[in-house]
Amino acid sequence: MQKRKMKELNPWEVGEIKDYGKLIKEFGMKPMDDYRIKYDDLLYIRRGIIFGHRDFNLIDEAIEKKKPYALMTGLMPSGAFHFGHKMVADEIKYFQDNGAQIFICAADIESYLMRGIPLDVARKTAVEDYLTNYLALGINPENLTFWFQSDYRTEYYRMRDLLSKRPTFNELKAIYGELSTGKIISALTQAADILHPQLKELGGKKPVIVPVGADQDPHIRLTRDIASRETEYDIIPPAATYHKFMGGLQGGKMSSSDPKSHISLLEEPKKAIKKVMGAKTGGRESAEVQRKKGGRPDQCMIYELCLYHLVPDDIELARIHAECVSGATLCGDCKKRCAGFLTTFLEEHQKKVAQARKTAEKIAKKKT
Amino acid sequence: MQKRKMKELNPWEVGEIKDYGKLIKEFGMKPMDDYRIKYDDLLYIRRGIIFGHRDFNLIDEAIEKKKPYALMTGLMPSGAFHFGHKMVADEIKYFQDNGAQIFICAADIESYLMRGIPLDVARKTAVEDYLTNYLALGINPENLTFWFQSDYRTEYYRMRDLLSKRPTFNELKAIYGELSTGKIISALTQAADILHPQLKELGGKKPVIVPVGADQDPHIRLTRDIASRETEYDIIPPAATYHKFMGGLQGGKMSSSDPKSHISLLEEPKKAIKKVMGAKTGGRESAEVQRKKGGRPDQCMIYELCLYHLVPDDIELARIHAECVSGATLCGDCKKRCAGFLTTFLEEHQKKVAQARKTAEKIAKKKT
Repeated sequence: MQKRKMKELNPWEVGEIKDYGKLIKEFGMKPMDDYRIKYDDLLYIRRGIIFGHRDFNLIDEAIEKKKPYALMTGLMPSGAFHFGHKMVADEIKYFQDNGAQIFICAADIESYLMRGIPLDVARKTAVEDYLTNYLALGINPENLTFWFQSDYRTEYYRMRDLLSKRPTFNELKAIYGELSTGKIISALTQAADILHPQLKELGGKKPVIVPVGADQDPHIRLTRDIASRETEYDIIPPAATYHKFMGGLQGGKMSSSDPKSHISLLEEPKKAIKKVMGAKTGGRESAEVQRKKGGRPDQCMIYELCLYHLVPDDIELARIHAECVSGATLCGDCKKRCAGFLTTFLEEHQKKVAQARKTAEKIAKKKT
Repeated sequence: MQKRKMKELNPWEVGEIKDYGKLIKEFGMKPMDDYRIKYDDLLYIRRGIIFGHRDFNLIDEAIEKKKPYALMTGLMPSGAFHFGHKMVADEIKYFQDNGAQIFICAADIESYLMRGIPLDVARKTAVEDYLTNYLALGINPENLTFWFQSDYRTEYYRMRDLLSKRPTFNELKAIYGELSTGKIISALTQAADILHPQLKELGGKKPVIVPVGADQDPHIRLTRDIASRETEYDIIPPAATYHKFMGGLQGGKMSSSDPKSHISLLEEPKKAIKKVMGAKTGGRESAEVQRKKGGRPDQCMIYELCLYHLVPDDIELARIHAECVSGATLCGDCKKRCAGFLTTFLEEHQKKVAQARKTAEKIAKKKT
């Protein structure tokens, strides 16, 4: 049972994680509840989508006392940039607005080793899809270190090599199962990605927050263990926040590589609307039953889209929820309303994307 | 039995290797015999000390046709630079004089991961002991790429990361036994050390010769396997020559970390003479017996020193050999004669060392 839990939390073999409470009990995360009111201007914290953390108190203190801190995040340059990715972008922007120095890594070595994606393909995706969307979602290019794992500063590679002394083989096996040299390089590189913002050359020791989905916790734990054992570098373990996953539009997993499961932020609005109209909802077997019993927003991908992204106003969201569970609004009308929100969002966003392209290219070319 | 053989050839747990012929039979090395006459101006080839090779024909062809080729070697920055290391230096100089582009790696990441030597200590040893002695032994600083594993060009780290896709775990286990992340990083880095001279940025695909002791063959085989499987880079497997080991002065192994076992090239001549006078020889239980039966140069560390280093003239060496086996010269006198050769060598060498220091510092500071 324990073994299965570990496997469920393996970043390279993700399954559905239903019971987020268990993660907190079994893996030593802390619930985010203490910070829900203080940081209620971030929708994901306010609505409990960011449900857990490690050492967020350090970040809270840095924000409070205006001390230096950083946010680090990585992107896997594969597949389309969808609403699941938007969550991370919104979190980056939020902490950037609250004083964090931002580090964004394009994990092209990992995508090569684990998925066989050539570096030039990964580079194109990272810049044209990910970085461009990040900028269009409001991330400030001025306060941003963006790098490719295959093309960065020597200090970073040196740090990774020295860190390799720390993790034990059994520790790696417990997290990743059967090991390969590629997996080990990927894991160590990710540790360096997270820890190197504390290099002297980059301002030295400081709290670093890594906003991740719950499935990424094994990486966080490994990196925290490595940091706590490290003697060559004066660093502290990274902090993390954990968010829930969005489900796929048809139910099941949302996946970059399955276009039916997600809406890309670069998708033509008409196509996106079709996906909304075909999405899985919490509707009943007939209109009649639904009018009587009401819908089930907790099982509805349309409601999830509104909850996570399209309806930032809590009162409006509460109204949508009430109309559903009371049976007053049926799925067809609700989908049409959602399609309206989505069209507005995509049209506005895609205008910004057009403006962001050049900046993204420029950032990617700059030597870091 | 096979397993024990593998272990004997593990670069990190070296034992004595008595039967060099077996290495050729069991591990697919080729004997060097075909090239002994053609390359007889290199003492180690002429005298059969370099006994085996892989793909030396490619190097022969490059020399013959004046085509580009490279020599790559690594140094472990730990302990003193002794006569065992001088062998590699002489080989570097020989191939440099014969047109090779020279690549010398200071394996400071390996010495950190495998032996816990801090990078700054390794750097000092690499420059003041190794590189300085290399230059004093005649290696030309003009045609030389010298780097630290911890401080090199991004293309090199990128190459190592991409190469990590190739070796299988079982292959690594067969060579290194119990694995650790540090061992894997060391092994992959060494592969990149050997293969990266074929990067486009460094002149592209070409034969590369790696002169090594027989114990290093597992690294060579691994690197050749990686190169032959690689698809991202247009490279060929490295060639190698294999030399016999010098024994320790007291018998047993010569070791950098045991000062009694070796003579450092920076050693005070007086101290060096003392070591010579106390060395293990092939002498008999009494002078009388030795005068009758003769000495055994094949068991004599003094003879080995003359054979490998101090008596380059074959006729003179033959005379020393004859005087020993006939019983005409006894060990005491022979040691004194050797001490004379040694003093001359060390005094001349150490003058050159004094001149080489600044150049070594300059090379180490230059960004490669």
